[in-house]
Amino acid sequence: MERSTTDWLERYHAALILTVRVRLLDRAGTLAELLRRIGDACTPIGDVRIVGTERDTKVRDVQLFCTDEHHRDAVLEAIDSTEDVEIVSVTDEVLESHRGGPIETVTRERLDTTMKLRMVYTPGVARVCELLAERPEAAWSYTGKGERVAIVTNGTAVLGLGDIGPLAALPVMEGKAAILAEFAGVSAEPLLVDSRDPDEVVDVVAKCALSYGLIQLEDIAAPACFEIERRLADRLDVPVFHDDQHGTATVVAAGLLNALDRTDRSPEEVRVAVLGAGAAGSAIARMLVDLGVDDVVVCDSTGIVARGRSGMNPWKEELAEVTNRDGLEGGLDEAIRDRHVFIGVSRPNALPPRLVRTMADRPIVFALANPVSEIGVHEATEAGAEIAIDGRSMNNALAFPGLFRGALDARARCISTEMKLAAARTLAAAAGGDSLLPDMLDRAVHRAVAAAVRAAAR
Amino acid sequence: MERSTTDWLERYHAALILTVRVRLLDRAGTLAELLRRIGDACTPIGDVRIVGTERDTKVRDVQLFCTDEHHRDAVLEAIDSTEDVEIVSVTDEVLESHRGGPIETVTRERLDTTMKLRMVYTPGVARVCELLAERPEAAWSYTGKGERVAIVTNGTAVLGLGDIGPLAALPVMEGKAAILAEFAGVSAEPLLVDSRDPDEVVDVVAKCALSYGLIQLEDIAAPACFEIERRLADRLDVPVFHDDQHGTATVVAAGLLNALDRTDRSPEEVRVAVLGAGAAGSAIARMLVDLGVDDVVVCDSTGIVARGRSGMNPWKEELAEVTNRDGLEGGLDEAIRDRHVFIGVSRPNALPPRLVRTMADRPIVFALANPVSEIGVHEATEAGAEIAIDGRSMNNALAFPGLFRGALDARARCISTEMKLAAARTLAAAAGGDSLLPDMLDRAVHRAVAAAVRAAAR
Repeated sequence: MERSTTDWLERYHAALILTVRVRLLDRAGTLAELLRRIGDACTPIGDVRIVGTERDTKVRDVQLFCTDEHHRDAVLEAIDSTEDVEIVSVTDEVLESHRGGPIETVTRERLDTTMKLRMVYTPGVARVCELLAERPEAAWSYTGKGERVAIVTNGTAVLGLGDIGPLAALPVMEGKAAILAEFAGVSAEPLLVDSRDPDEVVDVVAKCALSYGLIQLEDIAAPACFEIERRLADRLDVPVFHDDQHGTATVVAAGLLNALDRTDRSPEEVRVAVLGAGAAGSAIARMLVDLGVDDVVVCDSTGIVARGRSGMNPWKEELAEVTNRDGLEGGLDEAIRDRHVFIGVSRPNALPPRLVRTMADRPIVFALANPVSEIGVHEATEAGAEIAIDGRSMNNALAFPGLFRGALDARARCISTEMKLAAARTLAAAAGGDSLLPDMLDRAVHRAVAAAVRAAAR
Repeated sequence: MERSTTDWLERYHAALILTVRVRLLDRAGTLAELLRRIGDACTPIGDVRIVGTERDTKVRDVQLFCTDEHHRDAVLEAIDSTEDVEIVSVTDEVLESHRGGPIETVTRERLDTTMKLRMVYTPGVARVCELLAERPEAAWSYTGKGERVAIVTNGTAVLGLGDIGPLAALPVMEGKAAILAEFAGVSAEPLLVDSRDPDEVVDVVAKCALSYGLIQLEDIAAPACFEIERRLADRLDVPVFHDDQHGTATVVAAGLLNALDRTDRSPEEVRVAVLGAGAAGSAIARMLVDLGVDDVVVCDSTGIVARGRSGMNPWKEELAEVTNRDGLEGGLDEAIRDRHVFIGVSRPNALPPRLVRTMADRPIVFALANPVSEIGVHEATEAGAEIAIDGRSMNNALAFPGLFRGALDARARCISTEMKLAAARTLAAAAGGDSLLPDMLDRAVHRAVAAAVRAAAR
C-alpha cells in the first residue's frame, strides 16, 4: 500500500494531497460513477473511507493526489458535477500536517511532584548554574547542549523556491527538525536570521550559539553560504554544517559508491563531471576527491571551472585548485566527453541525450536537479547510460540525522572529512537489492551511520 | 509523603539531594544505627529502598537532603564511619535531574511512512513555504510559531547568583522551558545571547525573533532589562515579557489580593511600601497601582524613590512619576511608617522588627528576598504582622505558563495590564484553604489563568 502511494507521489510530484468529504446518495453505482469521474480527471485515488451514514446517504472521505492547484480545481469540479454527490469539505492534508508545526518541546520526565520541580527549577537549579559557572564544559553533561542543534537559515535559497526569506523557510527547518527528532533523537530548533548580509548572519549566530552542540546551516544561497560556514566554524567550538553542501555530498557519494560497485569500477579509476558549482556541486566535487576520485571536473553556467578562468569568485578559485587536474577548459561538451560519471545539480533539461553518447563506456548518470532533472531517466538510459537516476532516488535527508547524532555523541568540534566518508560508506553498505541507497525509514540505517561517525570522530 | 518532603526541602533550603547506595551487613540493628548516625548529622532522610541482596549483606539506596557541600561531606563521613556499612556510590539527584537537560524536541506525529515524510518535508513542504511567502501571517497556523517561545537571557542576573554569564544560566532557561511544556503545552527554547551590551542584545534577538510567538526575557540585570524589554517590544509584533518583572508582580499581586481579602481591606484603601526598585520591585509597584492601590512608595538602597531625587536613572524617574503620590522623602523608616503592607524584594534581613511595629494596624508583610528574607516570618508575626510570608510561599512560576498559553492562543501582540490583572485575579481566586496562592502542580489553575488571559486579550 505504502509503496504504491509513494509511487504515485513520485510519479506526479504530488505536493497536494486532498481529503474530500462527500455525501453520496445511497444507491448502487454512485460511488463507482464518482471514482470514474475522478479517474477521468487524471487523479490518483488513495483511501476511500466511510465516515458517516445518514438515512438515504453515506458520507465518505476520498483521498486524492494532485500535482498543483489547477489539477485540484479540475478534480473538485468533476466531483461537484457528479450526480447525487455533494462536497461536504475539502482538507489540504499537506497544510494540515504542518498545522501548529510538526515538532514540539516536551519534558523528558514529567514534573508531577514538588520535589521534581524543586530539582529542575529553583532552588535545585542554582547548584547546576554554579557548577557551569566554574566548569563550562559541564554543560555537555548537565544541560541539553549536547542534544541540541540550531537549524539556521536566512531564507535566501529555499528548496527550488529561491530567496523567499526566513519566515517562509520555517516549514523546511521544522521539517528537518522533525526528521532529526524522529530518526536520531536530536533536539533541533529553527533559528531564523532576518538578514541577507553574511557578516550579520555570522555575528547573530555566533552571539547566540552557546546552547547548541551543533549548528546546521540550511537553504542559504551560494556563495554567501561558504563564507558564513567558514567564518562560523572559525569562531565556534562546535560543528558548523551546511547540509545543502555536505549532507547532499554524503548521500551522493554513497549512491556513487554503489553505482561504481555495480559497474565493477573503483573511485580511483573513474573520471567524473559535476554540473553545477553552487553549494551542492562544489561539495560533491570535493567529497569525490576525498573519496579517491582523481579526475573530477566541475562545470557551471559559464563553463568548466579551471585555474585562471576569469571572473570566478574566491570559492570557485579554491574549487579549481582541488579539481580539474588536467586543466580542462571549455563548456559542458568538453566537461562530459569521455567521462564515466555525470552528476548534475543544476537546471532542468541541462543535459542533452547526445552528450550522454559522448561519455565513456557504460556511463553513470545522476541527474539530480529538482523538481525536473537535467535529463529524464528513460532518455539517459536510451542514450546508453548503464545506471541513470534522478533526484527522486536520492533522498538528501539520509545523511544528516546519523551524522549529527554521531558528532554530538562524540562531542566533536567539527564534522570532518573522515566522518562524512564514514557516513557515506555506511549508507552505501546499508542499501539493499537494486537500490543505490537504503530506505530513509529504516531506523537501523541511521543508528549505523551514527555509530560509524562516532567512531570516525574519535 | 510529598508534602513532608516538600517541608524538608523548604525548611532546609535543600538544594542538594543525595542518593547514597550503601552495603550493610545483614544483621539486626545495622540499619537503625546507620539512620541514627545520619540523624545525628542533622540530615533528613527520604526514601530507603532495598536494591539488592547478597549472601550476608543488603544493598540499600538512602535518600538524603543536605543544605550544602559541607553538610554533604559531614553526613557521608558519618555513614562511612558506621560499623558494618560501606558506601557503594553517591548520586547527586539534582545534577542527575539535569543530565542531558530536562526538555527535548519531539515530533507531534510519528514520521513512520513515506507519505508523512513527503508531507512534512519535501516535496510537500514547498507549498507551505509558498503560502507563507505570500501570506506571512499564515505562519501562526501552519508552523509552530504560535506555540513557540524564546527564553532569552544574557546571564547578567541569574537567580541570586548574579552575573554568571549566559551558558551558566542555561539550566534556569531549560527549567522554565520544562515548566512551560508541562503546565501549558508551550514549546520554549533557551536563546542565550552572549553579550552584556543592551544594544547588541536587542539587535541579536530582533534579528532572530521570527519563529517565536512570544519572547520571554529572563535573568537580565536592571536597569538594562527595562531598556531591552521596551526596545524589543517596539521592534517586534509579538509579546516581549520580562518574567522577573511581570511574572513576579502578577504572583505577588495575586497573593496580596487574598491577603487583603482575609484582612477585609480593598486595594483602594491600603498604603503599600515596596522595598527594592530593581526588576521585581518596580514591576510590583506598577502592578499594585494598576490594581487600584493609590498609595505606593518604593524604597531602594538610597531611600524613597521620589520625583526630583538626584542620581536616579530614567527608569526610576518614571517609577517616581507613577508612585509616591504624596512626594514622601527619606529612608525605609519613613517609607514603612503607617503602611498596611510591606513587600520586600531586596536583601536578607533588610527589615528590622522595630519597623514592623511602626506600620498601620494589622499589617501584611511579604518578605520575598531569596534565599534569606528581609525578616523571618516568625519575627514579623511577633512584631505584630497579621499576615507574614517569605519567598517560599510565593512561587513565581505560577503566572507565566498560563499567561503565555493565553497570549499565544489569542495571538496577542503584547501582554497588557489587563491580561496580567486577569491572571492575578484568577490565581487569587484559585487559592484554597489558608494559602494565599494555589498549588503550582494543579493543572486546572494554569488552564484557568490561560482562559482568563485569552479573554482579556480579546
